[in-house]
Amino acid sequence: MEIPESVIEEVKAKARKAKEVSIKLAVASTDAKNEALSKIAQYIWDRREEILSANGKDIQRAEERNIPPHLIDRLTLTEKRIKDICSAIREVIALPDPIGEIIEGWKRPNGLIIQKVRVPLGVIGIIYEARPNVTVDAVTLCLKAGNCVVLRGGSEAINSNVCLVRIMREALEETSIPPEAVQIIEDTSRASALALMRQSEYLDVLIPRGGAGLIKSVLENARLPVIETGVGNCHIYVHCDADMEMAERIVINAKCQRPSVCNAMETLLVHKDIAPSFLPNCLGKLTELGVEIRGCQRTRELFPDAKPATEEDWYTEYLALILAVKVVDSLEEAIAHINKYGSKHSEAIITSNVQSAKRFCEEVDASTVYVNASTRFTDGGEFGLGAEMGISTQKLHARGPMGLRELTSYKWVVYGEGQIRS
Amino acid sequence: MEIPESVIEEVKAKARKAKEVSIKLAVASTDAKNEALSKIAQYIWDRREEILSANGKDIQRAEERNIPPHLIDRLTLTEKRIKDICSAIREVIALPDPIGEIIEGWKRPNGLIIQKVRVPLGVIGIIYEARPNVTVDAVTLCLKAGNCVVLRGGSEAINSNVCLVRIMREALEETSIPPEAVQIIEDTSRASALALMRQSEYLDVLIPRGGAGLIKSVLENARLPVIETGVGNCHIYVHCDADMEMAERIVINAKCQRPSVCNAMETLLVHKDIAPSFLPNCLGKLTELGVEIRGCQRTRELFPDAKPATEEDWYTEYLALILAVKVVDSLEEAIAHINKYGSKHSEAIITSNVQSAKRFCEEVDASTVYVNASTRFTDGGEFGLGAEMGISTQKLHARGPMGLRELTSYKWVVYGEGQIRS
Repeated sequence: MEIPESVIEEVKAKARKAKEVSIKLAVASTDAKNEALSKIAQYIWDRREEILSANGKDIQRAEERNIPPHLIDRLTLTEKRIKDICSAIREVIALPDPIGEIIEGWKRPNGLIIQKVRVPLGVIGIIYEARPNVTVDAVTLCLKAGNCVVLRGGSEAINSNVCLVRIMREALEETSIPPEAVQIIEDTSRASALALMRQSEYLDVLIPRGGAGLIKSVLENARLPVIETGVGNCHIYVHCDADMEMAERIVINAKCQRPSVCNAMETLLVHKDIAPSFLPNCLGKLTELGVEIRGCQRTRELFPDAKPATEEDWYTEYLALILAVKVVDSLEEAIAHINKYGSKHSEAIITSNVQSAKRFCEEVDASTVYVNASTRFTDGGEFGLGAEMGISTQKLHARGPMGLRELTSYKWVVYGEGQIRS
Repeated sequence: MEIPESVIEEVKAKARKAKEVSIKLAVASTDAKNEALSKIAQYIWDRREEILSANGKDIQRAEERNIPPHLIDRLTLTEKRIKDICSAIREVIALPDPIGEIIEGWKRPNGLIIQKVRVPLGVIGIIYEARPNVTVDAVTLCLKAGNCVVLRGGSEAINSNVCLVRIMREALEETSIPPEAVQIIEDTSRASALALMRQSEYLDVLIPRGGAGLIKSVLENARLPVIETGVGNCHIYVHCDADMEMAERIVINAKCQRPSVCNAMETLLVHKDIAPSFLPNCLGKLTELGVEIRGCQRTRELFPDAKPATEEDWYTEYLALILAVKVVDSLEEAIAHINKYGSKHSEAIITSNVQSAKRFCEEVDASTVYVNASTRFTDGGEFGLGAEMGISTQKLHARGPMGLRELTSYKWVVYGEGQIRS
């Protein structure tokens, strides 16, 4: 696709400005960063009317375009939601600053002192979709970890996003953190996203936050390091010796408690020996809770209300009250199914057998593997890591919930007294 | 570029085979991996005649094509070099196994036990150039860290590489590690490299090892995570208060001790106050050692034998006895020059001032920053990390020397007793 010159110029100029101040962010003290975040929270709260008014324009446009109600809900800010955004900022202020940590260090026989020191990544690009709270979350986490940020949000929330960034930059003007550390691309065409994916000169990493289509586009088009996030085709495998009451409770929680999120279960695998006693009852309860069941042949024999599952179903992240169900012959078959169809996000086994649990944890290739717990716990807050930027499903750099520490790199600092190599 | 179907088939089939056995590698015990490495060392030594004969074909072809002698030297194996290769394998056997380490862990208030466990990356693709010892080094490091490996070496060494891989696989057949864990692409056209850069379904990461052209091609064409390695446009900055004797010793070492490697110095920056007393003498000695000097205007006034340096020179990794020299007005100018022209590899300051040293280390953006030592120490062995796969110059995942630990990822293992999210 041809990217218009004007779009390239906007993106490049903003990425360059962020890069130019990135050293200032890298050496900023914890106090300076916390004061800046505090000022941002204050400005956002004080100017909530202005934000709600900008958000109103986005909502009006969405309604005119007949956007579905659940998407309009995600787009909508209220005084209560702005308050929550400000509370989230204060939680990040309370988190320890990862920067400057001496991760490890030692003295070599030749006297060289070698230290591995945690430093910011530098400039982080973020491409995201419709939720305006992501604008503030992303800025807050990036700044606390000493990074500059270039935002490229979705067109649906552009008025809200631009307003929030303007207010955040005005807040920074009253602090020692340069406002140029926060940039937003105002062009929301596909071209601006593509242009951002090519700023390897100025961006150190690009993080896409959104649905499978966005992630795929970034992986195909990016010319700089990417952290792949969020697509969650998560499984729960109920082994033959599972505590059935526990299994049912976990399955219902993982499917129904919040079906639209990446750590919700999408496929249930059940060992053939327990399927006859477990499935009819459990699937009946799920159906009562509004879940549509799509089953393999053996599932449909045990639960005739299930629709037939297709090959496509095993690959699908529904993000909705739909569940694919498959009866398997063995633990090995369950592991092989997950490794073939899963998205390396979160996978659980329900079992009482210690060897089966160990084998599942070792052989399933995913960011997080669970024994006897709901997949819904894959989350920075639930893990105790604090606020997060998303869930990484790749193996390079960070895996699973990405908190402040995952937004950092390190450098080696070596002190000598004239050493040369012989 | 159109990739022939036959090339895609070879690459894809080999990548898939590696992926298929990757779980076996991931769960292999340290003993099993060490026994496999030991068997590989034994086979390589026992069958050195066969290897030397295959290598002879590569050398003969190189001579027929009038390849320069220093490249033929890099390609050449001798009984002594094969012995060194086997010693290097035994060094990797002696290194601790990174896999299975519980990096951290804790119990949450709801009773969930959360562990961050070190696991292999999975399947590593390596694209490299003419040195056959890289074939064995790469296999050894990958296997020890529980990874499968798909090699795509340069055409110059293809007979040596194929022979080495055949022998290593025959060695593995006598062990519990599947020979499929080691794959080599026998097509050495540009098309096979491009095909490997697109195996995101089977490869977890791609590591290019070679010159700037190879790295650039991989960054532009890869559709999977890459670790950028090795291009080193390294600087030494001699501050106004430097110990001149120390500065001269370090400068000569960093330029002349082994000019063809990535951690050798390419540009010397000198503070204007010390330049008149430091440069003429130091550059005179470098000239005597065969170094060609390319200087800025002020350098040429102090050392008229210097050729004029062009803008291009500041960007160039010579890998030869050529040195660019610039006189700067301040520490800030030195830092700005390095951050603009450097390749984020290794950068050194020679100074007696603690504030200047601190500022240089904080503000220079590079994998390794040195105070009063030669840049030549950026190396896994010199750092005490053991054998290395290369020097990462990106910020994601790993930075600086990449040893065994940098060839790993982690997964979160969570143990519950029925916990659900509320």
